[in-house]
Amino acid sequence: MATVDLNSDLGESFGAFKVGNDEEVLRYISSANIACGFHAGDHNVMMRTVELAKKFGVAIGAHPGLNDLAGFGRRIVEITPEEAYNMVVYQIGALSGVAAAKGVKLDHVKPHGALYNLAAKNKALAEAIAHAVKDVDKSLILFGLAGSALCQEGEKLGLKVAHEVFADRTYQPDGTLTPRSKKNAIIHDPEEAVKRVIRMVKEGKVTAVDGREIPIQADTVCIHGDGPKALAFAQALRKRLEEEEVMILKPGAVR
Amino acid sequence: MATVDLNSDLGESFGAFKVGNDEEVLRYISSANIACGFHAGDHNVMMRTVELAKKFGVAIGAHPGLNDLAGFGRRIVEITPEEAYNMVVYQIGALSGVAAAKGVKLDHVKPHGALYNLAAKNKALAEAIAHAVKDVDKSLILFGLAGSALCQEGEKLGLKVAHEVFADRTYQPDGTLTPRSKKNAIIHDPEEAVKRVIRMVKEGKVTAVDGREIPIQADTVCIHGDGPKALAFAQALRKRLEEEEVMILKPGAVR
Amino acid sequence: MATVDLNSDLGESFGAFKVGNDEEVLRYISSANIACGFHAGDHNVMMRTVELAKKFGVAIGAHPGLNDLAGFGRRIVEITPEEAYNMVVYQIGALSGVAAAKGVKLDHVKPHGALYNLAAKNKALAEAIAHAVKDVDKSLILFGLAGSALCQEGEKLGLKVAHEVFADRTYQPDGTLTPRSKKNAIIHDPEEAVKRVIRMVKEGKVTAVDGREIPIQADTVCIHGDGPKALAFAQALRKRLEEEEVMILKPGAVR
Amino acid sequence: MATVDLNSDLGESFGAFKVGNDEEVLRYISSANIACGFHAGDHNVMMRTVELAKKFGVAIGAHPGLNDLAGFGRRIVEITPEEAYNMVVYQIGALSGVAAAKGVKLDHVKPHGALYNLAAKNKALAEAIAHAVKDVDKSLILFGLAGSALCQEGEKLGLKVAHEVFADRTYQPDGTLTPRSKKNAIIHDPEEAVKRVIRMVKEGKVTAVDGREIPIQADTVCIHGDGPKALAFAQALRKRLEEEEVMILKPGAVR
Repeated sequence: MATVDLNSDLGESFGAFKVGNDEEVLRYISSANIACGFHAGDHNVMMRTVELAKKFGVAIGAHPGLNDLAGFGRRIVEITPEEAYNMVVYQIGALSGVAAAKGVKLDHVKPHGALYNLAAKNKALAEAIAHAVKDVDKSLILFGLAGSALCQEGEKLGLKVAHEVFADRTYQPDGTLTPRSKKNAIIHDPEEAVKRVIRMVKEGKVTAVDGREIPIQADTVCIHGDGPKALAFAQALRKRLEEEEVMILKPGAVR
Repeated sequence: MATVDLNSDLGESFGAFKVGNDEEVLRYISSANIACGFHAGDHNVMMRTVELAKKFGVAIGAHPGLNDLAGFGRRIVEITPEEAYNMVVYQIGALSGVAAAKGVKLDHVKPHGALYNLAAKNKALAEAIAHAVKDVDKSLILFGLAGSALCQEGEKLGLKVAHEVFADRTYQPDGTLTPRSKKNAIIHDPEEAVKRVIRMVKEGKVTAVDGREIPIQADTVCIHGDGPKALAFAQALRKRLEEEEVMILKPGAVR
Repeated sequence: MATVDLNSDLGESFGAFKVGNDEEVLRYISSANIACGFHAGDHNVMMRTVELAKKFGVAIGAHPGLNDLAGFGRRIVEITPEEAYNMVVYQIGALSGVAAAKGVKLDHVKPHGALYNLAAKNKALAEAIAHAVKDVDKSLILFGLAGSALCQEGEKLGLKVAHEVFADRTYQPDGTLTPRSKKNAIIHDPEEAVKRVIRMVKEGKVTAVDGREIPIQADTVCIHGDGPKALAFAQALRKRLEEEEVMILKPGAVR
Repeated sequence: MATVDLNSDLGESFGAFKVGNDEEVLRYISSANIACGFHAGDHNVMMRTVELAKKFGVAIGAHPGLNDLAGFGRRIVEITPEEAYNMVVYQIGALSGVAAAKGVKLDHVKPHGALYNLAAKNKALAEAIAHAVKDVDKSLILFGLAGSALCQEGEKLGLKVAHEVFADRTYQPDGTLTPRSKKNAIIHDPEEAVKRVIRMVKEGKVTAVDGREIPIQADTVCIHGDGPKALAFAQALRKRLEEEEVMILKPGAVR
């Protein structure tokens, strides 16, 4: 029987600034990526979010980002591999402390925003991040863009890796995402998006923008939590996956 | 044979801002309290400082502070016990991650600045901090002002506690520090300061400002690292303690 | 003919964090207090907010707060009068620059949150803040809690001062606000709140919690913008003030 | 008679973090570029630095940087021209407020670090920054790398512009600085550095790395303040300029 993980970014509030619908999204996912105080989140938000994820039985992962609260970790900031290593170690550690206080353990690590995008292409940063994960806890699963440098470096180091796909994005013939600046980057029809996910999960294939069939590894699917549309999509995707007898499970779970 | 710990606050640089003489101070101490990114320090500084402490064989502890970089954690900020709990958990976790990456473990936790002072008197904050330490790792030793609310709450929860004394400060008849605003708060003569420390360690007594002898538990002595005078004092104190056959050892060390 | 100013705190978003309904609130008010990047707001948000206030013909004021983004400027942080002076000068300057770029000028200054509350009671902080306003631009109108230390110090320095009242709060016999911790601190009935505002504006009187009539100067009324209830109240208050032939005008405006 | 300006970056401390030797450097320069709280400096430091510059009779300028305290404004952060405009407006405004409180006016604006480097080459960012300066106060002098996009855009907008040269850096045949990554980027001999400055100022020429003579406009020379070597160089340069009958004056000063 096929399985897939559904993951979402949670705990992105900061102080009095509220972001997201964490309680809603938690109903549909199997893995929560929790912001660690660098691009979003803070110690109070993290504590509440870990507790919430625990309550819903959802796997808890660190979602380390660049230390750029003003840019929400989405702006590229020039960093060395050494700094990437240090910031990922710090953030995994911080969330592990929070998890320990709540009596749970981390399952995975997924870099956020610009750090995720940089690590998809930049081998040196990817290696530094994979090393950081390994050095703090080698049992953690590393989430990265399917087929990316990050996944490759994680696998080289012997980490368990979850290849992530996007339901609403198109793919280039080489397996990379079509840049958002291109017209055909986004899939707007929810029904088509669902079909593509099912095919990626069950057949390991996706149709690239030039019509070619390309192989893709879909261990986990990214679910957005912003707005009623996103939640409706998550619900629909979940229902259809169950109809297709695809089990929704955190990566590495014993079925 | 008597023993005592000498501790100092390290890793207080931030980004391009350099603070302290960590390499020098490490020659004289047995325990390093490392800033965790809230009042000072950052992920890069922490990584370097843990490595340095490891090299010198000095025990590593978290030095959590208020999230007030602009005030260096020295200004009182209104916080609830819940927030104190959360910020201490986060910071212990972050430094634990860094320590794990360097293959070492934390030995202790000492709150910084305003958090330390608040926890010395405020029972609810003291209890929250002690709980935070216990919930992350109950083998950690809690450092607090000798006889303070923080030490009492730590002991109630079954934590190992190190009572801290100050070489250059005078004491009130009730065992509290004379506030810095008072004329006789500071001991300026290094020789007298050394003598007082030796007596606190060997006899468990100190002469209060009114001439009374009061009992005091001196498990660890705070050593400042700022400036050549501070380093000369640390060196002198160390020499005299050895002459007096007081071993300098981290708290709880098997002699 | 009686006049009164309606003011509201705007521009409290930060980076990707969205707060408030600025476009809605601007329909009901005559003065906008714009966050200046310390407790909320940033250079981008300020530019948009000044532009919006200009479009609606609403007076623009600086809303300086403590440099505590994590606490939204609501937590008391220990500051000296000198620091209060410096932070108010800086923030007025920053917003003045933004206003200059948009071809408009500031009308007023209203301290935010904990700084407002501290300045209501602490004479030294009040004086420092009033001095800051005067030293940057003595034509600026200082907003403070009606009858507070801040208003008194502003008047002593020869500043124009606007005494602020709250529609939904009760008053003590000495003219101070009933602390929120007390049961009878808040007026929940919108109709009663409107009536009290009209009486404060037209008669200069309010009924204190012990039933006594006390004098109060109501130059400006604080309007909240959070949530549909707050907006409905603003609309109702505006309508009733107009029925009562009270003109809604920024302080000091020539009628 | 020839004139030249000597400028230096000041006010780069932050809270308890001390940077630089401002009192020393002020003896040798005619223009101070004061950090505005984004990459370094804070409201307290700015107030002290403006006061100090006023005392020494040195021209005061804003030194706006990227909002990246952790990176000291030296790391490239992805920003739009709109954001560059907003952050420069904000920072000029903030320092203008501080200057107003001290009864002085700003003379110039020099972007800091990565913002300076980006504006030297990126036309859109250069234009945005020049517009920001003009929109806040069109009498301000814009400092930029000699011959850079920033100087060009400033001149197009009708601003007074000061072309800045570096005593210790070599130049490419096209007038750009040799990147620091190249072996021959730095001039280590102080005597040679002084000679080059004098020739740039008096003849408007410098010898590029390939031996060619190239024209260069040297309105202002950047002086570093970090360390005794830098101060000795500043002193030597000043002495030699005076021997060569080059007056040291802020840009645009009436001689």
